[in-house]
This record gives sequence, C-alpha cells and structure tokens, in this order.
Amino acid sequence: MKLSDLGEDALIARWTRHLPGSPSLLIGPGDDCAVTGRRSDPVWTLLKTDCVLEGVHFTGDADFARVGWKALARAVSDIAAMGGEPRHALITVAFPPTLEVVKADALYAGLRRCARKFGIAIAGGETARSPGPVFVSVALTGEVERTRCVTRAGGKPGDVLFVTGRLGGSRSGKHLDFMPRVHEARWLAGHFRLHAMMDLSDGLGADLPRLARASKCGFELGDIPCSPGVSRDEALSDGEDFELLFAVSPRQAAKLEREWPFSKLPLTRVGVLTANKALQSTHGFDHFA
Amino acid sequence: MKLSDLGEDALIARWTRHLPGSPSLLIGPGDDCAVTGRRSDPVWTLLKTDCVLEGVHFTGDADFARVGWKALARAVSDIAAMGGEPRHALITVAFPPTLEVVKADALYAGLRRCARKFGIAIAGGETARSPGPVFVSVALTGEVERTRCVTRAGGKPGDVLFVTGRLGGSRSGKHLDFMPRVHEARWLAGHFRLHAMMDLSDGLGADLPRLARASKCGFELGDIPCSPGVSRDEALSDGEDFELLFAVSPRQAAKLEREWPFSKLPLTRVGVLTANKALQSTHGFDHFA
Repeated sequence: MKLSDLGEDALIARWTRHLPGSPSLLIGPGDDCAVTGRRSDPVWTLLKTDCVLEGVHFTGDADFARVGWKALARAVSDIAAMGGEPRHALITVAFPPTLEVVKADALYAGLRRCARKFGIAIAGGETARSPGPVFVSVALTGEVERTRCVTRAGGKPGDVLFVTGRLGGSRSGKHLDFMPRVHEARWLAGHFRLHAMMDLSDGLGADLPRLARASKCGFELGDIPCSPGVSRDEALSDGEDFELLFAVSPRQAAKLEREWPFSKLPLTRVGVLTANKALQSTHGFDHFA
Repeated sequence: MKLSDLGEDALIARWTRHLPGSPSLLIGPGDDCAVTGRRSDPVWTLLKTDCVLEGVHFTGDADFARVGWKALARAVSDIAAMGGEPRHALITVAFPPTLEVVKADALYAGLRRCARKFGIAIAGGETARSPGPVFVSVALTGEVERTRCVTRAGGKPGDVLFVTGRLGGSRSGKHLDFMPRVHEARWLAGHFRLHAMMDLSDGLGADLPRLARASKCGFELGDIPCSPGVSRDEALSDGEDFELLFAVSPRQAAKLEREWPFSKLPLTRVGVLTANKALQSTHGFDHFA
C-alpha cells in the first residue's frame, strides 16, 4: 500500500496517534502551533514548523527572494493565528549543488526581509545537499500571553465568524507576497475575547470546517469577501490566503465592527457557528454557493 | 556561478552574515545549538534544527525505523553537547506519494522510539509531498541551566581534551544506531567545569579544529580511541560518531578520570589545547598520523 492510497488526512491521523507528550506540552499537534510552558506561566511559548518544496510549493523559475519570504511568512501566520508574536527562527535548506549562487542568495535575502519585518531573530539552521529539488524548512518560536492565547477549539454556538482581507486568487502571485496578520491578531487578542482563531492556509472551504470541528460546532456561511476577479468557489478553495478566521460572541462582534482600526484591511462577517454539528461539513457550502 | 563552485564553508559564511538578531538570542549560528533567553534567567532555552535526506544521509532501501531514530538523535546529540536536556520536537517530513506506507510508519516509529528514550514530547510537525527523495527535518528545543551551559568557545591553552566512546566505523551501520550522550554530558556539566564541548558529527579531524578555533587556541593530538578494525585515519575522518569532545583544566581532568562513572563507555584523553594557534589546522594531524 502506498501513501497515495490512503490520503493526507488518514495518514496524519495515523502518524499523530500515540505521540510522546509531556506535562509541559500544553497543546500538541492539531492547532496552528504547539503551545509549551507551565499552565500557570504568564507567557507561553509557541512552536511551529513548516516547509516549502520546489515542484510543490513553488517552481524552479520562481523569484527565490519571494520564495524565502513565503517560507518564513507561512510560519509567522500560524504564530499570529494563536494571538502570539514570533521570536526565533531556525532555517533548514537543501540545495542541489548545481543551483546558481544568486538564487540561493536571493532565498536568504527573502528570509531575512521577512525576519526583519516581524522582529524575528534567525537563531541558526542547517544547510544540506539535495539530490534534486530545493527544500526549505522553517521552525519558528513565538510567545503569547496566557490570557491572549487563542486556539481553534473555543468557538461557541451563536458566535459570529469573521475573516480579514479578501479571499482567493493566490495563484496569481499572492501566495508569494502575502502579509501575515501579526499586528491585527495582536490587536484582536488584546482587545476582544476571541473564542477561536486560525489562519486560512488551505482555503475557507477546508479551514472553516476544521475550526468548527475543533470547537464542536456546525456553521452557516453567508457572503464572503472575494479578491478582484475571483469567484466565490475560487475564494473558498484557492487556499494560501493567510488571512485570519475567528469567532467572537455577537456582542463582541458589534463592538469589533465599530472599533476595527485597520482601514486598509477589510473585516467581514462571514457566518455563524451553530449548535447543529450536522452543518459541520463542506456540504454546508452548497446551500450558499 | 554554482553552489558547488564555492563550497560549504564559504556558502555558510556568506549566508550567516548579517542575520537579524535580537537581545534574547544569546548565542546564534555557529555553535551546536542556539541559546535564547535573558542572560539572567536561571534556565536557558536551546534551539536546534537538522535534516536527513534520502540519497545523501541514507539510502532508499535503509531500515526506515533506524532512519527515524537517526533524524531525531542527531539533534539530541547537539542538545547534549551544550550540557542540556531535550524537550520538544517538531518533525517535518516530505514523502513521495509512491512511498510504501509501511516505510513511512517505520520512520515515525523510529522517531517515537528516540523521543521516548530521551523524554522528548513531539509537539507537532508538517507533512508534505516530495517530488523525489524522502526528506526529514527535525527542530528540537532543550533546556540548560545557565551555570551548566557549555559552548565551543571557552577552551583555554593547557586544557586537556577528552572524547567519549570509540571513533570511526560509522559507515558499517553505527551512523543509524548511535546513542546521543545526554546522560554523560549532563553528568559532566553538573560535576565539572567544562571549558568547551561539542559533539563529533563530522569526525574529530574536522570538528576539533572548529572547537580550537572557537576557543582561539591551537591543539596537539595524541592517541585516539578507534572502533574495532578502524584505522586512525578513518577514526579521524569517518564522521557521524556523535560522541562528546570537551576541554577541561588539567586539575579537573585528573579528577574526572578518577570519578568517571560510565564503565561501559570509554573516556579518553586525546590531546591538549595550546596557545599556539598555528597548530589550529588539520595539518596538525600529520605530525601524529
């Protein structure tokens, strides 16, 4: 039996069963980041790893500076989704020996640019020879005040669902240039009682069911903010939006819409969480498509 | 110009220049691990990333359980080399879709076995499709008491150099089965004033000059402990020993030889650090070969 016979969800479930834990691992695999520390600590540590591969996440003729930005920014987006701030990055890269030095230099320039933008220290890394594709893996630590830490699991029936920005159109280039919503998420987690939050990496159509399932809710979805020239179906499924999806009480929702200070970034009420878990499936989208 | 035209040392120097730092990054790239925290904290955090690739670090027909062990144990060895204890691991894997499920399962079994052995919690990870080779990247955190943290840089002229275990012969299989010296390093760092320490990953012939250079010393090398059937040259150059190399004062050295409690693991005095930096090169070995 080959991996392709089982599919990603079954494989991940298989491999994340029976993983060794520890008392200091407060939240393990399954959320945007792992959370470590003592439950009583005022500040918790966030841990995230991610990777991009040539031929899967980018093409060999891509602008490698943008690839470097993307490689780190993807992990930054996950730190943001927990309400945290990124701190230290470790960069593992495998290059084929035939790669042009200017391309490798550009990749590191992109990584550094993203690190500077978000105040991240590059703490170390590893460089290896690849027998084929370029491979970039990023491990990122972050910090979040215990009182601001937001998971996917705290949503409640009746909660209002919001997304930042506009969805879809990643393939036209946005997937290499997106801006992780660290500042927005910090503001949100500092001023509102967010019940649940995640970043949109696989598209709202795949990610909203994950948030709802983690929160043991269903959902109803209304209008969604689409990127220019992008259909609703594309906005749901393109993926790599790296916008925030979050759930707050109706009372907090009204306050949030009055106080949202990021005038250049749309904030859109896209739906509600429901007590009826039967709505917890992508079929839910058919009612609104 | 291609990467192969420049060579590894020049490339790493190129890419680690001008990396963004931060006040909480106490030790950045260049030692076995990065060290983060506040200088006054009683316990510091260690960060390490490492990777193994099919076709470079192992062959496609290798026992993947041993590959999994190796992938995590390499990083554990670096935590040990700082005097620390490993804590939380993040595992990034890229598999070709055609890989047999039993092989992927075996890889995770090996990772879990190593994690349990050293009390490591697997905090999360990422699984991606590879267009070719199997790729495994491990990020590992650790902790070390400020008073026990040992770098490569504190060696002094006259210090005695020790190595644990026997060197060489990694290609006969040891490179997949080695045991990181966490317990031994913890005992050493807890009972002795270690001036400098590192783990031997590239062979004593390559690694000792690094420790000496970081400590601004030269070195003289005497007899070294060779694995059975392995010549001195092979023991110096095979690499992947994952034993400890460390420097202590002559007084501490004599005490250590009396008190070393690990009767199954040889401890060998292999040389001294010198004030003459001119001896700081692999040419130094020629005098003794």
